Amino acid sequence: MKDLGEFKLIDLIALRQPEAHGRLLRGIGDDCAVISGEGELASLVTVDTMVEGSHFDVRTSKPEGIGAKLLAVNLSDVAAMGGTPCEVFLAISAAPDFDADFIERVINGLQSYGLRFGVQLAGGDTTSTAGPLVLTLTLIGTCPGNQVVYRSGAKPGDSVFVTGTPGDSGAGLLISQGSSPGLSGRDRKYLLRRHHRPEPRVDVGRKLASDNVATAMIDVSDGLGADLRHICQQSQVDVVIDPALLPVSDALTAFCEASKVDPVDMVLSSGEDYELTFTARSGDFCADWDAECRLTYIGRVVSGSGLTRIGSDEENQVYDKEGFDHFSGSRKTQ
Amino acid sequence: MKDLGEFKLIDLIALRQPEAHGRLLRGIGDDCAVISGEGELASLVTVDTMVEGSHFDVRTSKPEGIGAKLLAVNLSDVAAMGGTPCEVFLAISAAPDFDADFIERVINGLQSYGLRFGVQLAGGDTTSTAGPLVLTLTLIGTCPGNQVVYRSGAKPGDSVFVTGTPGDSGAGLLISQGSSPGLSGRDRKYLLRRHHRPEPRVDVGRKLASDNVATAMIDVSDGLGADLRHICQQSQVDVVIDPALLPVSDALTAFCEASKVDPVDMVLSSGEDYELTFTARSGDFCADWDAECRLTYIGRVVSGSGLTRIGSDEENQVYDKEGFDHFSGSRKTQ
Repeated sequence: MKDLGEFKLIDLIALRQPEAHGRLLRGIGDDCAVISGEGELASLVTVDTMVEGSHFDVRTSKPEGIGAKLLAVNLSDVAAMGGTPCEVFLAISAAPDFDADFIERVINGLQSYGLRFGVQLAGGDTTSTAGPLVLTLTLIGTCPGNQVVYRSGAKPGDSVFVTGTPGDSGAGLLISQGSSPGLSGRDRKYLLRRHHRPEPRVDVGRKLASDNVATAMIDVSDGLGADLRHICQQSQVDVVIDPALLPVSDALTAFCEASKVDPVDMVLSSGEDYELTFTARSGDFCADWDAECRLTYIGRVVSGSGLTRIGSDEENQVYDKEGFDHFSGSRKTQ
Repeated sequence: MKDLGEFKLIDLIALRQPEAHGRLLRGIGDDCAVISGEGELASLVTVDTMVEGSHFDVRTSKPEGIGAKLLAVNLSDVAAMGGTPCEVFLAISAAPDFDADFIERVINGLQSYGLRFGVQLAGGDTTSTAGPLVLTLTLIGTCPGNQVVYRSGAKPGDSVFVTGTPGDSGAGLLISQGSSPGLSGRDRKYLLRRHHRPEPRVDVGRKLASDNVATAMIDVSDGLGADLRHICQQSQVDVVIDPALLPVSDALTAFCEASKVDPVDMVLSSGEDYELTFTARSGDFCADWDAECRLTYIGRVVSGSGLTRIGSDEENQVYDKEGFDHFSGSRKTQ
């Protein structure tokens, strides 16, 4: 008997799934499904579930924060394809004696957060379960069909960029689990917020798409190294990331010094940042770039077969599930 | 502390929800949300969740049947607004040691059933839970915007119709729970199938919309009496249903005789039939009607404030959550 742990839905379906056809331009395998419309706009659709005990703890999480984070995760998927988020649908499975006030506050948090992005809660379902609280959100967005940024558009010679400072969220998670030796209150608070209240890069993603800057894009949810590998696999290229160029926030630097972990490991391997990483035809667009967040050039696209490489053109190592043997000689332990 | 049992999502949200605006023509309160497009077609969106233990039993249910039923429930919502179903998105929350073969067969069942309706599985999410299997399906369909049939369009003088033979599914449920005194194998099998494999009336719903026949429509999921009340409330009318006109299948008649239950109660009160009930400007369209299922005239729309009434114009009783005091003098006990 197989365990579900061995599988992901994408594998279960992709194995037997016919190619997307009809108005479905893209099914499984990108941040969103893409559906063509009658006019210029395509629809983008993404679904994410958060489960009590796996993704949040009702004893320690603020319910408004759970609602906001559930939406943020979905917004990030739409941002990663260059879209504008529009409507959400929330399915709630809760125990019959679950505190209704808590659920109301989750919905409040989701709706308040949605207002910032012009997102409306348009429907859903409530069911009873004997198990933990399960929240599934479906988000529908739009994007002009000729501007949708897929994972598959990277070409050798393109530059690789990342928004913001990935790794912060992973440090925030460790802090929330009790690890914060000698960190200042300010750094601690900053990193915790980066974990609990990620800021999906909706405006940046939209601008990268509408200005035809990004050739391939993905949001950083599993870790920068792993997510770049998805771009590499779908584009049939390699990327070479220069570890010296990776952006590290001051707070993460302080955390890594205090915890004796390598910031490069944190930036490449820790997940749930909801930043964007993308490839672009050249690096020059940055001169005119008027973005509300930091954009950092971190490496380039080369010919290859779908690998993330860390180092220089001359000397680099493959980044895989176990990380990489980086040049300091230490092995990532996380 | 409030229990969730007192609430439904629709109440939680509708209380504080601003009116649907922008391209969202209809949010919560109908079978689907309705989103206008750039061209003629509107999008219809519906979400339904099935939970192990509440909606199915993994020890006794065929996994393919679970997948098919989950889709059928959603198809019925799109049918009730006159739409054509297109793409589905499946969110699966399962225990880490849950049998992956079972999940694969659920997906197989959903995909095979979807082929009959031209529906593609276009995405989803898998998460781990410590609780029962939770399956949430989002279905997106289309309908020309000027043909969408809402619950709110019934007018006094309209006729009321229902497709097929409601009540069968409720009898099938009772049989699956062990109640089938003296029933023939054929009737038993028919009623069980009607429960486990409902046939959403997608083609009929589409035709009722495209021919401009239906003025208001809803699918029969909670029971004919209760679902008609939704039309009444949203249209601000009453309906008067003649119990003598209600369609009763031969198998349900046999079941009711053997079980000593009133067939009128079964038809009005038992749920999960996934038939359609609708109002129409007059009853004459039936003469030319070339439908693949039985359509039955069961009553008419009168002025009122949102009630389902059972009886004649002269003598009728309000159908409420507890059923109604029908003319045989017995009180519904289910």
